[in-house]
Amino acid sequence: MFAPLQNDTFLRACLRQATPHTPVWLMRQAGRYLPEYKATRAKAGSFMGLATNTDYATEVTLQPLERFPLDAAILFSDILTVPDAMGLGLSFQLGEGPKFATPVRDEAAVNKLEVPDMNKLRYVFDAVTSIRKALNGRVPLIGFSGSPWTLACYMVEGAGSSDYRLVKTMLYQRPDLMHKMLAINADSVAQYLNAQIEAGAQAVMIFDSWGGVLADAAFHTFSLAYTARVLAQLKREHNGVVIPRLVFTKGGGQWLEAMKQLDCEVLGLDWTVNLARARALVGENGPNAKALQGNLDPNVLFANPAQIEAEVAAVLGSFGAPHTDLTQTGPAQIFNLGHGISQFTPPENVDVLVRAVHSQSRRLRASQG
Amino acid sequence: MFAPLQNDTFLRACLRQATPHTPVWLMRQAGRYLPEYKATRAKAGSFMGLATNTDYATEVTLQPLERFPLDAAILFSDILTVPDAMGLGLSFQLGEGPKFATPVRDEAAVNKLEVPDMNKLRYVFDAVTSIRKALNGRVPLIGFSGSPWTLACYMVEGAGSSDYRLVKTMLYQRPDLMHKMLAINADSVAQYLNAQIEAGAQAVMIFDSWGGVLADAAFHTFSLAYTARVLAQLKREHNGVVIPRLVFTKGGGQWLEAMKQLDCEVLGLDWTVNLARARALVGENGPNAKALQGNLDPNVLFANPAQIEAEVAAVLGSFGAPHTDLTQTGPAQIFNLGHGISQFTPPENVDVLVRAVHSQSRRLRASQG
Repeated sequence: MFAPLQNDTFLRACLRQATPHTPVWLMRQAGRYLPEYKATRAKAGSFMGLATNTDYATEVTLQPLERFPLDAAILFSDILTVPDAMGLGLSFQLGEGPKFATPVRDEAAVNKLEVPDMNKLRYVFDAVTSIRKALNGRVPLIGFSGSPWTLACYMVEGAGSSDYRLVKTMLYQRPDLMHKMLAINADSVAQYLNAQIEAGAQAVMIFDSWGGVLADAAFHTFSLAYTARVLAQLKREHNGVVIPRLVFTKGGGQWLEAMKQLDCEVLGLDWTVNLARARALVGENGPNAKALQGNLDPNVLFANPAQIEAEVAAVLGSFGAPHTDLTQTGPAQIFNLGHGISQFTPPENVDVLVRAVHSQSRRLRASQG
Repeated sequence: MFAPLQNDTFLRACLRQATPHTPVWLMRQAGRYLPEYKATRAKAGSFMGLATNTDYATEVTLQPLERFPLDAAILFSDILTVPDAMGLGLSFQLGEGPKFATPVRDEAAVNKLEVPDMNKLRYVFDAVTSIRKALNGRVPLIGFSGSPWTLACYMVEGAGSSDYRLVKTMLYQRPDLMHKMLAINADSVAQYLNAQIEAGAQAVMIFDSWGGVLADAAFHTFSLAYTARVLAQLKREHNGVVIPRLVFTKGGGQWLEAMKQLDCEVLGLDWTVNLARARALVGENGPNAKALQGNLDPNVLFANPAQIEAEVAAVLGSFGAPHTDLTQTGPAQIFNLGHGISQFTPPENVDVLVRAVHSQSRRLRASQG
């Protein structure tokens, strides 16, 4: 049904297999920093108009690949499509973030929640298949979803928040309601990601964007446990091919030892994490060893080319000597930013970054002999 | 000149000496959640009108002590008084955060910066003396400042920021300018805190509120190194009494091993930190052992009294058995929130919290025999 994969470096690194260079892609790589994205967005009229139109979603997903030799594509969509399908009424005000028309703030609202009919998310699965076809085997396609906790943050707050007061009030005051919502979110996310896999996604990533705002104990109870509940329900392979699962908790650097126990292949890391330490904790060999993805500060892309190259060298150097033995698995890195790329990024600096990752990581492997 | 201290539990805990209960105070304890604060604020006309008037600053500093049996007072002021004295023009728009009229965004602006004349900050030192007198020895008075890096964030951004793009662009593109600004900030903060000590502050705290937004390597170079530069210049004692120094990096939980090397007595911790782990890393005995301050999620104060008491028990339990041997130093905790108290907090819940810390921590000591 789909063309054979030409560049499998990303998928191999996910499985901790050796690769000729360190694969690289960027969170939010299809986005507002690209003038061609803005042009398509203008044609579509609105963000959801863009995300729900298969042709537009395909077009913008491929745009960064036309410019830069990236090693993976990621579905163009939003992390909040699932609660939208639950009937919460997602919209995007221009210049502001996402907003829900009917936030979930009391027992009655929680009791009304249920796993949405996946047919309401058909536009996402259609986009996955369309993008996979358009990629024509160039690079693998990553599907994704928000984590149960991150969805709950938006569902309760109704929008972004600086203090997460409403969602945390529910968490501390009515943990029963929070657990009920998180269980529904987890089962919804699992169905959603499995449908993306069936539609053609070759890896899936869970964005726990707001896990890092939780207190230590609360993170384990209200975020990690429900990410684990999603993972337990995910397909391990599709048509005989393993589907790697990536988990990224922004601000989760202190919880890597607990995250090592997750049944997934890759942990994403933000820029606050020391890669050498993370590799020692969760990236070296052992039954639960994970590939690590990250973790350049997106603001490095506002520096000059030579400075960007130096920061790429620092991130590669911090991870340390790459694994090169083709006969076994070992420590593996997927280069990425530590968070989504800024809309103000000069596109030419992204080119500098991607090429620096490829050339420097090839040189590192060559110097290891 | 000042009345003798009646409740020295906070100062003793700072020095890792045994105390009959775990001392407690709350970041931003004099603030908008108190109706009496709002009344004084209304009389003063503006935030800076409040902060620059000795009588008003004294009045609001003492307000929470009239309500709750807190173990320390903290100077009412703002972390941005120092750049204001540098001539950047600090103001507070109603409902928004602080704003600088002339942010520091290029080489010319950095070259104009210098350590301000401390006479411009006389209103702060006058407030310290006035508050110390008004306290009449009830509890010790904590002075404070923003850290060099945190000041730089506001000085470059001109206001709060969600991505710190401008200040990080300068950091990555012109590290020379950033180092120059941070050196001036550090020397200014040191003079500022020493003057607070001379005016009557019995402990001083450095708020590195935005240290946690930095990448791992950048934190060490651009935040921690300049906090250390401040500490190196601070008075160790005043009139023969030791002046404890507290450092709080919000989001700094991954860097505790490096922060252990700081020449200070106490590290503040936000709610993401596991206290048992922090105690093992930096709170147990040894040449650089520190007292630990924190770390309840301020949103716990939106729960019910029994739930607040349970969360207090969890924080005390996470730190573990308190040190009780009066003949030597040992692990010590100062109870606090992990960040400033929310303006929406019901004051009666603060009372529940403070009393729970006292009664539970006394019980813990009694049960140890």
